[in-house]
Amino acid sequence: MVVKVHGPTIACSTRRVLTCLIEKNVEFEIIHVDFMNGEHKQPEFLKLQPFGFVPAIQDGDFTLYESRAIIRYYAEKYKAQGTDLLGKTIEERGLVEQWVEVESQNYYSPIYNLVLQLLYHPKMGLPIDEKLMEESEEKLGKVLDIYEDRLSKSKYLAGDFYSLADLAHLPFTHYLVNGIGKAYMIKDRKHVSAWWDDITSRSAWKQVLEL
Amino acid sequence: MVVKVHGPTIACSTRRVLTCLIEKNVEFEIIHVDFMNGEHKQPEFLKLQPFGFVPAIQDGDFTLYESRAIIRYYAEKYKAQGTDLLGKTIEERGLVEQWVEVESQNYYSPIYNLVLQLLYHPKMGLPIDEKLMEESEEKLGKVLDIYEDRLSKSKYLAGDFYSLADLAHLPFTHYLVNGIGKAYMIKDRKHVSAWWDDITSRSAWKQVLEL
Repeated sequence: MVVKVHGPTIACSTRRVLTCLIEKNVEFEIIHVDFMNGEHKQPEFLKLQPFGFVPAIQDGDFTLYESRAIIRYYAEKYKAQGTDLLGKTIEERGLVEQWVEVESQNYYSPIYNLVLQLLYHPKMGLPIDEKLMEESEEKLGKVLDIYEDRLSKSKYLAGDFYSLADLAHLPFTHYLVNGIGKAYMIKDRKHVSAWWDDITSRSAWKQVLEL
Repeated sequence: MVVKVHGPTIACSTRRVLTCLIEKNVEFEIIHVDFMNGEHKQPEFLKLQPFGFVPAIQDGDFTLYESRAIIRYYAEKYKAQGTDLLGKTIEERGLVEQWVEVESQNYYSPIYNLVLQLLYHPKMGLPIDEKLMEESEEKLGKVLDIYEDRLSKSKYLAGDFYSLADLAHLPFTHYLVNGIGKAYMIKDRKHVSAWWDDITSRSAWKQVLEL
């Protein structure tokens, strides 16, 4: 069964799902959702995702949305296929969940603010909120200091194994490093930088960037 | 092994964890963290939770933080003990994860804003941001309309079984209904209201409110 992924390939949340599907060797087909034409707010798409956010997947009769729920579903459904992304023990899985939550609660939001201000506000002719930018950069810096400490003790976020926790960070960090000229925030932290080089060298992520 | 839960019992995230532990019949001990004295930002606590947020748990040598990661861990570790909170199939678990994510990404944030403005700003002598309040209430209303539709089709969020998805909503919705006089947002929606009556009538939640 080919999994249908509804969403623009350029969206961070879609990329999170696609990276996971490739790591798990799951065949998929992308159904483009046109943000510019507001397709994600049209009745057809809202049947799949009532909140109007991308992505949503269809796997036979089964529909699921929320990128972090989708990656957990495939990591579990195909536990023994492709890269194991959940750890070997229940405690390792606990730590995977902890760092997926840290990404969701502490990490992506300041990057989202920076990307919005630096990349999209100029395109849309909107003013840049300098105060919000400063606060977001400061907040992200503090979060990254904790990552630096963590990654000085283990190779990956949840331990010495690559997992959903690392994978979940790829799309937004990609914008931080390559989209808005803030690579120094990663590069100036020795262990975060080595981690970033490692996780971006994986074939699945490279394939997603080429889609 | 008695689980040590570090956090003030009144915090929403601590309550989420305690409700889960009681549903799973897991013995615990609460180690109070004094927010008023900034104990959550002191070195001793930061060793457990480097970001300075509550709660964190200690289970023997194992430490975990982020409330939604902790409830997943215990729901999985004691799958067969107490209330099953993850569903019976991998698809049911997928839907549980989806609605835990919806709570995390769409639901709690407007309530958090309302609680902050209506309950804490007056106490701290800060002005109320009327625009933010209006926007938050409008946003939450739209989210609850989607919940109303969902709960007209299944008894609980992930299906016809009580799960982590419902449990995760208890603490913030409690503030909405009982703390800031916005009960109408739940009560005026027939299916949301019935769901709320159902999930708050559970013994585990009642016990948490009495702690």
